[in-house]
Order: sequence, then C-alpha cells, then structure tokens
Amino acid sequence: MTVKVGLLGLGTVGIGTAKILLDPAERHPLVKAVEIYRVGVRSLDKPRAIELPRDRLTTDLQAIVTDPNVDVVVELIGGLEPARSLILEAIRQGKHVVTANKAVIARYGDEIFTAANEAGVYVLLEAAVGGGIPVIQPLKQALGVNRIQAVTGIVNGTTNYILTRMQEEGGDFEAILADAQKLGYAEADPTADVDGLDAADKIAILASLAFGGRIKLEDVFCEGIRHVSASDIAYADRLGFVIKLLAIARRDTCPMSNEALEQLQLRVHPTLVPKHHPLASVNDVYNAILVEGDPIGQVMFFGPGAGEGPTASAVVSDILNIVGTLQSQSVAAASEPQNPLLACTHQHYCQVSPMADIVSRFYVRLLAKDQAGVIGRIGTCFGNHEVSIESVVQIDVHGETAEVVVVTHEVKESNFQAALAELREFANIQQVPSVLRVL
Amino acid sequence: MTVKVGLLGLGTVGIGTAKILLDPAERHPLVKAVEIYRVGVRSLDKPRAIELPRDRLTTDLQAIVTDPNVDVVVELIGGLEPARSLILEAIRQGKHVVTANKAVIARYGDEIFTAANEAGVYVLLEAAVGGGIPVIQPLKQALGVNRIQAVTGIVNGTTNYILTRMQEEGGDFEAILADAQKLGYAEADPTADVDGLDAADKIAILASLAFGGRIKLEDVFCEGIRHVSASDIAYADRLGFVIKLLAIARRDTCPMSNEALEQLQLRVHPTLVPKHHPLASVNDVYNAILVEGDPIGQVMFFGPGAGEGPTASAVVSDILNIVGTLQSQSVAAASEPQNPLLACTHQHYCQVSPMADIVSRFYVRLLAKDQAGVIGRIGTCFGNHEVSIESVVQIDVHGETAEVVVVTHEVKESNFQAALAELREFANIQQVPSVLRVL
Repeated sequence: MTVKVGLLGLGTVGIGTAKILLDPAERHPLVKAVEIYRVGVRSLDKPRAIELPRDRLTTDLQAIVTDPNVDVVVELIGGLEPARSLILEAIRQGKHVVTANKAVIARYGDEIFTAANEAGVYVLLEAAVGGGIPVIQPLKQALGVNRIQAVTGIVNGTTNYILTRMQEEGGDFEAILADAQKLGYAEADPTADVDGLDAADKIAILASLAFGGRIKLEDVFCEGIRHVSASDIAYADRLGFVIKLLAIARRDTCPMSNEALEQLQLRVHPTLVPKHHPLASVNDVYNAILVEGDPIGQVMFFGPGAGEGPTASAVVSDILNIVGTLQSQSVAAASEPQNPLLACTHQHYCQVSPMADIVSRFYVRLLAKDQAGVIGRIGTCFGNHEVSIESVVQIDVHGETAEVVVVTHEVKESNFQAALAELREFANIQQVPSVLRVL
Repeated sequence: MTVKVGLLGLGTVGIGTAKILLDPAERHPLVKAVEIYRVGVRSLDKPRAIELPRDRLTTDLQAIVTDPNVDVVVELIGGLEPARSLILEAIRQGKHVVTANKAVIARYGDEIFTAANEAGVYVLLEAAVGGGIPVIQPLKQALGVNRIQAVTGIVNGTTNYILTRMQEEGGDFEAILADAQKLGYAEADPTADVDGLDAADKIAILASLAFGGRIKLEDVFCEGIRHVSASDIAYADRLGFVIKLLAIARRDTCPMSNEALEQLQLRVHPTLVPKHHPLASVNDVYNAILVEGDPIGQVMFFGPGAGEGPTASAVVSDILNIVGTLQSQSVAAASEPQNPLLACTHQHYCQVSPMADIVSRFYVRLLAKDQAGVIGRIGTCFGNHEVSIESVVQIDVHGETAEVVVVTHEVKESNFQAALAELREFANIQQVPSVLRVL
C-alpha cells in the first residue's frame, strides 16, 4: 500500500522532508510506502536543492488539500493563514494532517482537533516542539500512563544560544543578539524568540498533551530575556546557577499539604537553574524537555530543537505513524475507530493559576546607597510581606553605590511583588535592575 | 472494550505495574480499559503491598498463558526459563506479549520474534532497556526514519553509581562496590552488572532495533569496570575526561573514505568520555541513551534506568500501545495485518566487525623505571606499529618508578595491541596497570 502525501511548502523543512522520502535506503522500510504526490510552492521556477518532477509542483495549495488522491497533507508553510484554513479544509476532506506549525496549533488547536475528531482523522505535530526530539509522541504514549507533575523545557534554540554565549563570553544581550543575527541563529525580527512567545506556543502544546486538557494561549505567563544582563549571569554563576529561558507547565500543589491541585502553572521566563540540574548543561541551540511524573520520576529528552534535518525527521516520523496505522487496518481508514494514543480527544480547558498565586524563589539585584543600613531595611521590608530570605550577597561597591543580590525562599508571587513595590519606594534603593525566578 | 492482562510475576516491577493499573485517575484514559485478569505468583500467601482479589492469583503460570480470556501476557518473572517457554506458549496461543526481560530477548529474540510474526501478535519490551526511559519505541518509530549511525548508552545503573562515587570520593572500586551492595544498589553477586553482561544484553537489543537486523549476543565485545582504579579516574579528570561504562553500537566507517560500511561495531567497555559530552554528566543510577542519525544529528534520552515505578511505567505503556492498536481495529486482531511500527520483522543477522579491526583512541597507564629514556622508548615502540601518540603525561614519580599516562590518536585495535605486547617486553616497563578506550 502506498500512501500519497501532499506537501504544502518547500522551504527548509519541506526540502528536508522530501530528501528523506526520496532516499529511503537504510531507513525504516515503511519510508518506501510514502509517495510525494503533490507539492505546493509559491514559485514554480525557483531553483531548489532537490529534484522533483515538474508536474508534481503546483502553486494551487487549495487544489492539494481537496485532491481526492491525497491521503496525508503535510503543512509546512508556517504562520497562521492560510495554514489554518488549509489544515481545516484537509480535515474536512477526510485527510490526515501532519504539521510543524506550533503557532497555528497553539492558537487554533481547539478548532483543529474538534474538526479532526469529527472527521476521524489524525493531526500529528511532532515537529512543532523540540525540532527532531521525539517528545510529543512519548508524552501521548509512553509517558501517558504516568500522572504528570511537570513539563519543563528549554524549547527555544535562539535564546538558549544567546544565553550560552553570554555565559561563556561574559557579554551583554544586545551585542550577542546582533552577532547571532549575523550568524543566522536569530531572525532579523527576533521578537518571537527573545520575548518568549515561541516558547509560550510550545509549552501550551506540551501542557495540553501532558495534562490532557486544552490550553488558552493567553493563560501562559510570558517574560523574555531582553533584561538579563551579563552581571546577572556572573552573579548567578557565583551562586551556583546558570540562567536559562524555561517554559514550565506544572500541576499546582497546595502550599500547605503539598497535594496536587486541579490547576496548572503555565509560564515562560528566564530562570536561575542550579548547575547540577539536568537542564543546566543544555547549551547552544540544543533543546531539552524534562518530564516529571508518577511513578516514572524524571525523564529528559535532549536534542537539536530546529534545523532542516531534525525537523524533517520529526515530520516524516509522523507521516510513518499514520502509514503504520493505516496498514494495520484491513478496511478504509474512515470507517475504522481511531487509535486513542494518536488521536487528541480531550475537550475541556485546563484551569490555569493566576501568576499572583504562584509560589517560587526569586533572585533580585539592587543598587543601593548607604550600604550600612540597607540590608536591614531590605530584610524588614521583605519580612513585612512574609518574604523569607535565603541569602543576601553584597557583591560590589562602586563609589557610594553597593550592588546587593538577594535570593529568597519560596514565596507567593503577590507577596513578593508587594514587598518589591515597597522596596522601590525607599530613598536609598537607587534601582532594581533585575528580578528573576529561581528553579 | 476491556483488554484482559495475565501478569506473570508479582515482584517489584509486577507490584508497580499493578499499582498503575489499579489507580487510573489522572492517567491516560486508556488505562481504564485494562483489566488485571490473572496474576501468576510463586506463593499465594505472601503478604504484598497491593490488594488483589484472592481468586485472581494462581501459582499455575502455564494456565495463564493458555487461558482463552487473556489478551495480553505480561512477563515479569525474569531469567531465561521458564520465561522463554511461557512467552513462546503465549505467542502460540495468539496472545500479545509485554516483557521487561532483557536476558531472554537478547538470547532468544530470534525465536520469539519469528514466532510472533507467524502468529501475528506483538512482543513489546520497552522496560527491557533503560527502565522508564522511552527509547525502544522512539527507536522503532520516531527515529526510524533516520539512517542511524550510532547508539551509545549508559545502560547499567549499578556501574554508573559505582563510577560516579569513585569520581566524587576518589575511592577504589572494591570498597565502593561493597558499600553499594550494603545500600542495595548492587546485587550480592554483582557479576552481571560490573562485568558488563547486563549492558551487553541491552546494547544487543538496541542495536537490533536501530540497525534493523538480528544480533548474536556473542558478537558483543564485553569488558567490565573491575580494573578501573581511583588513579585512572583522577588522571582522566586532569585530562578533561570522566570514565563511564559505555555500551556502543556503531555503523562502521571505512577509515580511508569515512563512508558507512555494512558492518557494526558492538562493544561494552569503560570509556574516557570528554567532560563536555552529553553523556559525561549522567551520574548515579541514571541511564542515558544517545542516538546519532542522519538527518537528525544527536538526540539523547535520559532518566531512571531501573526501579519499581519507572520500569512499571514502561511496562504499562507497552500494554497501552497494544490496547490502542486493538481499539483502532474494527475486527478481531488476529485477522488484521500488523502495524509495522510495532512489529519486529527483520530476519537477517547484522555483520559485526571483529574487535581487532575497530579504530579507537586509547588511554594507557604505565609504571616505568629509568624515566629519562622511557618516553623515547614508548614513542618508538608505538611508532613501529603506526600508533600515533596524542599526549604523554609523566604524572607521578615514586622513588625510581615513574607513572606515565599515554593517550593515543585513533588507531586500529590490532596495531595497538601489538604495540602494547612489545612494550610489555621492555625491561624498564614494570607494569601496565590500565588500558582504557577513549570516546
């Protein structure tokens, strides 16, 4: 049985996908069962790194998703429209869909999966998170027997590259971002990466799978890395931490009983990670996703989070998953029940805790005058709001100004913010350049 | 549809498996579709950590594998017999099998998978390698679209625990092994772990999946960690390495053209791993498996390699995989074709390179008299056999004896061994206490 694929988009990932499918030797034998039947492109005449018969190419993407011969539509054009409409049309036509489009799934997953379940087709998205790293499928299948407590990821390669270089070179954000742009590791408009929006899309998708509920993207708290400075990285280093942009989805626990609640924490922010933590040594453009569950404990998936080859590997693995499922069914797919491990059937929305309720540790860097009295003042102010201090380090003195770094114990966000607001009012606190969370 | 499981064995992993199945809340909804129908135990009266109705238990394991109501047999008794016979009988009866038994699969996989393919049933074994870490399924599915170049694993928790403690405490093997035995991290008879036999079973299984061929266990070169000394670990540390017991399966490349050959390297041995390598920071009882392939690059899976909860997680995920597949088929399983991503259909044996042909780097520690001339002598002797030296470090001198550590460039094993044999004949070489391979 040959399965006919309609490929939408022949950019980097599309080229990588076609390369695998056109060169099946020494790969899983099932790769041979996949035929690139139609490829939708913007221009027919552009020179490309692969050879495809000219009559397979078309600029009419709509014709691909409605072609009765196409079994699986592979959406690799990215962005919201026309990607969303093409995916929905493919589903309506009874076609399975494979996509690498995190933005469209994070925003329209609800609509897309509802339509897919009605049509009895699969929508697979391994390439949408973590590039080539198999993490979507393990979350749906191998890890699904666990009661998941948390998914914590370094899921954006650009910011991890920038933070790693800041760590290694002691350089500042702006200079290294500019260099990363020159080297092609960051986009000309770096907003989606450095402001954490890309990571927010991805953690919304991971949380939905890990906790079996739908996620509203606006529920994800999102803070980027623009304000992380070379001196924060240096202080963190001295305190035994590295700074990483983490995307966190965690089942909230009751602070009194430590019992799991029905609410999730969902947040993306730069975080001080202890050096011995498995995520601390994930550097450069690599991604990693740490899953904690009962009874498995901690499992981590590490690998290349982007790039032609890795992302294409994930796309083709999804195609194969559909081919394998179709081959194990003796009759036409549409009349068969779905494999619940591949389908996405949850309907309800997850409850997400407001950020003000979340308990975490904080790192604060302050510039203060009159150092003799200032530490007492900080301590009192934090104490008034039940913020307990783990350590105070007065690291550098420049003339009359002392730089003071405070690390707190676990504290409720709203209490911490109230203390911070009060602190900012003190005459001898000149500036609070950094507030970061600690894992 | 409920799927009825016959559980063979109610030891640590059996208890863990039952705990998950009896407590499905907040897990994948499919867990509820699994019924523990029969449990085979050695003694009916032993007190246990879980409650099961007395009439589910039996000491007659044969009756479970032949019970027409049982859909899936879960073999958790371990060892070779009666495990092998019970698995084969279950297959003949048309039942799917889930097993955590690496020993039986590494030795009788050929017979078992041939029988399974004839009967049209699945034999799944996620728990056999890497405890809870999902690695078998990703190798069969998500990574299968890649041309795999190498699988390199820390797959034995006991030896990794011992080596980590030797690294951290500077202690010697025997003392730390004794302590590990007292703490329950090593067996009373530690042979299978410390001599690398357990790791050999596991890499044989991983290689078979990664390279799509059967493996003869006796083709795996196997060297344990008994001879790794505190001073080797200290020297390795100074040279920028940690010592790990690695299990390696690698597609051989032609030394001249670097082109992939049709032969595999299969070996287990203590190895100097550069500190920046992803496997270097995998410590204590944790396992990790690094997969390298084209086009994915490097992907690593990290997690707990043993224990009740993690191993049970893997067992139940296999059961669910079968349940999901059965639910997506509208007619009785036996008449349906198999999903080629779950089945194991390769028939041929992999060609394995003899150890003498393998190219690697070496670390050698020598005790020599008359240090003035000895380094020249070592250099000449290695040079005679085309062994090129990367570095020679003369680290300690005790009286008349100098300790010399040599690290070679890549060299063919047979050349290296010939040079070493010649070196041992020199009057001023008193001893060669350590020879280790370098990654």
